[in-house]
Amino acid sequence: MAKEKKSALKEGKGVSVSEITNLSRIKTIKEKRKSKINTEALVASILNKNITALSRAITLVESKNLTHLEQANTIIKACLPHANKSIRIGITGVPGVGKSTFIETLGKHLTSKGKRIAILAIDPSSTLTKGSILGDKTRMEDLVKDANAYIRPSASGDSLGGVARKTRETIILCEAAGFDVIIIETVGVGQSETTVHSMVDFFLLLKLAGAGDELQGIKRGIIEMADAIAINKADGDNLKRAKLAKVEFNRALHLYPEKSFNWHPKVTICSALKNEGIDAIWELILEYVAITSKNNYFYEKRNEQNKFWLIQTIEEQLKSDFFNTPKIKKELENQLQLIETNQTTPFAAADYLLKI
Amino acid sequence: MAKEKKSALKEGKGVSVSEITNLSRIKTIKEKRKSKINTEALVASILNKNITALSRAITLVESKNLTHLEQANTIIKACLPHANKSIRIGITGVPGVGKSTFIETLGKHLTSKGKRIAILAIDPSSTLTKGSILGDKTRMEDLVKDANAYIRPSASGDSLGGVARKTRETIILCEAAGFDVIIIETVGVGQSETTVHSMVDFFLLLKLAGAGDELQGIKRGIIEMADAIAINKADGDNLKRAKLAKVEFNRALHLYPEKSFNWHPKVTICSALKNEGIDAIWELILEYVAITSKNNYFYEKRNEQNKFWLIQTIEEQLKSDFFNTPKIKKELENQLQLIETNQTTPFAAADYLLKI
Repeated sequence: MAKEKKSALKEGKGVSVSEITNLSRIKTIKEKRKSKINTEALVASILNKNITALSRAITLVESKNLTHLEQANTIIKACLPHANKSIRIGITGVPGVGKSTFIETLGKHLTSKGKRIAILAIDPSSTLTKGSILGDKTRMEDLVKDANAYIRPSASGDSLGGVARKTRETIILCEAAGFDVIIIETVGVGQSETTVHSMVDFFLLLKLAGAGDELQGIKRGIIEMADAIAINKADGDNLKRAKLAKVEFNRALHLYPEKSFNWHPKVTICSALKNEGIDAIWELILEYVAITSKNNYFYEKRNEQNKFWLIQTIEEQLKSDFFNTPKIKKELENQLQLIETNQTTPFAAADYLLKI
Repeated sequence: MAKEKKSALKEGKGVSVSEITNLSRIKTIKEKRKSKINTEALVASILNKNITALSRAITLVESKNLTHLEQANTIIKACLPHANKSIRIGITGVPGVGKSTFIETLGKHLTSKGKRIAILAIDPSSTLTKGSILGDKTRMEDLVKDANAYIRPSASGDSLGGVARKTRETIILCEAAGFDVIIIETVGVGQSETTVHSMVDFFLLLKLAGAGDELQGIKRGIIEMADAIAINKADGDNLKRAKLAKVEFNRALHLYPEKSFNWHPKVTICSALKNEGIDAIWELILEYVAITSKNNYFYEKRNEQNKFWLIQTIEEQLKSDFFNTPKIKKELENQLQLIETNQTTPFAAADYLLKI
């Protein structure tokens, strides 16, 4: 072996460079930079009322990709200080009651007053069919073309809780994008009304005048949730019946104790198609906001809603973690069987399952 | 040292006897035997309709001593095959409505027909005051002396869930002791009506005729729970008002969709003091039992109630385990603060807490 000549100029072999490590590191850094730039730029654009940026952010919120969800969380956090400034209105009513026409007419009324409005939807059926009640935008032709209106079909998801979360986060983004009024529509399948009710300031129930007994068959709990009931299609031959229905609904609302914040639910009649009574409903909502802002209920309610969603999300997760454990699933069946045949009590069964 | 003489007759020193071990072992065996004899004898006595044995078993159910609770579980398990044969009636109404008099009159009516009745109570206020709505037995003087009536003051406990469990288990014991009718009274504080409603076959709401608007101020959800409403104190000057109240309650009940088992809630008037209309209420209950037994709803409902209590007990335990962790308690406060100041969303806060 020849001895190497020592020289101050000679380069040693040094530690060998691992190309793989470096490449992956470089990629990570590049991606981080890219993502960082993206979210920051997106937030700036959203705050600048850029609809394309808003849509991109909502798409991130709705994504199932973990990186996207992380980005979504970053964006939401940055938007939060700019949120909470809109009036959030929930609208429900059975199919055929004229929700789309109503929202279109109300929406046009608001944009004509210089308001910017966003329309979202919670549709539990779309979690199964992947369809959406706002998917068919042709039903709101004028509003779709309106630069001050933003219509977003309902998020799909595996559970109503998941859809609710996405919608709540979308509200924050829309508010950061400067929308003055957020309308959340639901067809009222399953628990969707309760879900919408828990995220809005004002809950409006749309009804039709029927064949006399308006309240037969009305969904349990709906009347107690409503801040107002609007009887739609009150035009032509329907007008008289609508007025009678108004009397009956007023009587029904009277049966409930007054809510504790100086607001007793109101009943109005309207015709969305003929644009009659829509302005009165908007005035009603403004009156509600004025009264409840003054006595602070408006803000207390939002705070309560936030707490509700925090606790709700945790509880849902705890339950689903427990009941989705394969062993629990199996043993639960066994225990239910034992209860049904009087061999154990529900409490002994619960103790047993909790001990697993 | 003198060498000991070897002999086949000589006893070796052997292992020294630990007196302490032996004594405690003997005690354990004695206690086990005693306890075994006790529970077996108790169950036999309960099935033999022995009231003293029943009371002792209920005391075990209500005990906080773990050995007692184990014995209680053994007794309940042995009683289960003999339970489920009574009619369980829930009775609620505000203080002053005449619940004690009503139960006394209904109770006497039933025992005069040869029925054996047990009267229990759920009183959430007693979980705080350790008092009891049935504690003052002097209010049911005649019934107390009646050999076919058994009155047991409400269990006390740290939570409504705990009291509910004890009451449910007491029902099983009473049924094993051959009681035909179990009446569960509640004053309707907090969630107690819902609790009672979830453990009875028939839920009766006692009301008074008021100053016209009977439904103002009625507790939310109560009317939907009632299988019947009895307007009490319908005598003398009150009779006319009671009849008017009946009309109004009937109208109110009409607003709710019919329950899916061929029973629309009924309204009756009665005077417990004058023993008027009490027999009609009992006939109503029998009619309900006949209809719902025939279409199987009676048993389906009990099954649903069992499932409800199983799931409810598990969920309560999961939640209390989580939220009572000291670290979670502290962090929850922090997160609520962050939500209130728009620094985080309820969902991000929930994610954070669940990761702890």
